[in-house]
Amino acid sequence: MAARVVLQQCLSARLQVKPAEEGTAAEYVQIERGTLIYVCFFKGATVDLIPKMFKSLLNVRLCEDNEGNHVSVLDLPANVLIIPQATLGGKLKGRAMQYHDNIGKEDGKELFAQFVAHCEKELASNSKCAEVGVVVKHGTYGSRQVLQIDTNGPYTHLIEF
Amino acid sequence: MAARVVLQQCLSARLQVKPAEEGTAAEYVQIERGTLIYVCFFKGATVDLIPKMFKSLLNVRLCEDNEGNHVSVLDLPANVLIIPQATLGGKLKGRAMQYHDNIGKEDGKELFAQFVAHCEKELASNSKCAEVGVVVKHGTYGSRQVLQIDTNGPYTHLIEF
Repeated sequence: MAARVVLQQCLSARLQVKPAEEGTAAEYVQIERGTLIYVCFFKGATVDLIPKMFKSLLNVRLCEDNEGNHVSVLDLPANVLIIPQATLGGKLKGRAMQYHDNIGKEDGKELFAQFVAHCEKELASNSKCAEVGVVVKHGTYGSRQVLQIDTNGPYTHLIEF
Repeated sequence: MAARVVLQQCLSARLQVKPAEEGTAAEYVQIERGTLIYVCFFKGATVDLIPKMFKSLLNVRLCEDNEGNHVSVLDLPANVLIIPQATLGGKLKGRAMQYHDNIGKEDGKELFAQFVAHCEKELASNSKCAEVGVVVKHGTYGSRQVLQIDTNGPYTHLIEF
C-alpha cells in the first residue's frame, strides 16, 4: 500500500493553516459544500501514484446532489479540502499506535504538494467547476489540523492506493 | 476482516438521532471533549468480536490530555460518540463504491447495539469516568448521521478487527 485516504462529505468546513502567534491571529481556509480528503502516504510512495489517486478521488461518485443522487466531485461540482493526516498510517500495537510504515516527512510533504497541485489543476481545467467557482483548499503538511466540519451525514469512505 | 473503525478526536460534536418530522423538531445528542468512533461491520462478524473491539478502542492511547500526552478514553477520561457508518465498508469499483462485504442490516444493528452497550457499561464501571461524568452517546443505526464536529486536530486513525 502506498497511500491511504479517508473521504468525508461536508456542508462546510474550516481548517487552520497557521496557528496564532504572538501578535498575529491564526489563519484558516474554508470551504462550503464539498469533500474532505484526508491523505496519508506510506514508505515507497512515489510521484507516479499521484495521477491515479487524484483521478480516482475526483471521479468517484460520493457527493450527493440536490436530488439525492451520488455524483463525483467534478460532476457536482464540489469544493475540496485536502487534509494531511499522517495518523492514518498508524498500526495498533498493544495500547499504542505505531507509524513505522509512514513515509518520511520531506517526501511526504512533496507528494502532498503534488497531489494538491494536480487536484487544483484538474478542477481549474474542468468547465463545470470553473463556471460554478468551486475551490481546492488544503492544510499545512506537518501541522496540527485544527478542523471544524458541518455535515448532512459525513458518508465516510476509505480508499487505499 | 470483521469490523472497520475510524477514530477522531473532538472538542465537541453533535449528531442527529431523529430527523425532523411534521410538527416535531429533529433530535440530537451531543458530547464535549472526546472520541468519535465510526463503526462498520462486515459479513461474518459475530458478537464474539465485541469484547476485543471495545477493550482495544477504549484503551488505545489517542486522546490528548492537557499536557499534550496521549492517553486512553478511560484514562483522560473522554466522552464517546459512536457513529454507525456502513459506508466505511465500501470498495472502489470503477467510479462507484460497492458494499458487497457489509453485514446485513439486522445483524449489523444488533452488533452495533451490543458494542454501544459494552462501551456504556465499561465507562459506567470505571471510577474515574464515573467521577468526571463522561458519557457515551450514539447515532441511530441505518439513519443519516447528520454530524457537526469541532476539533483541535481530528487525529484520524483507522483500526480494523
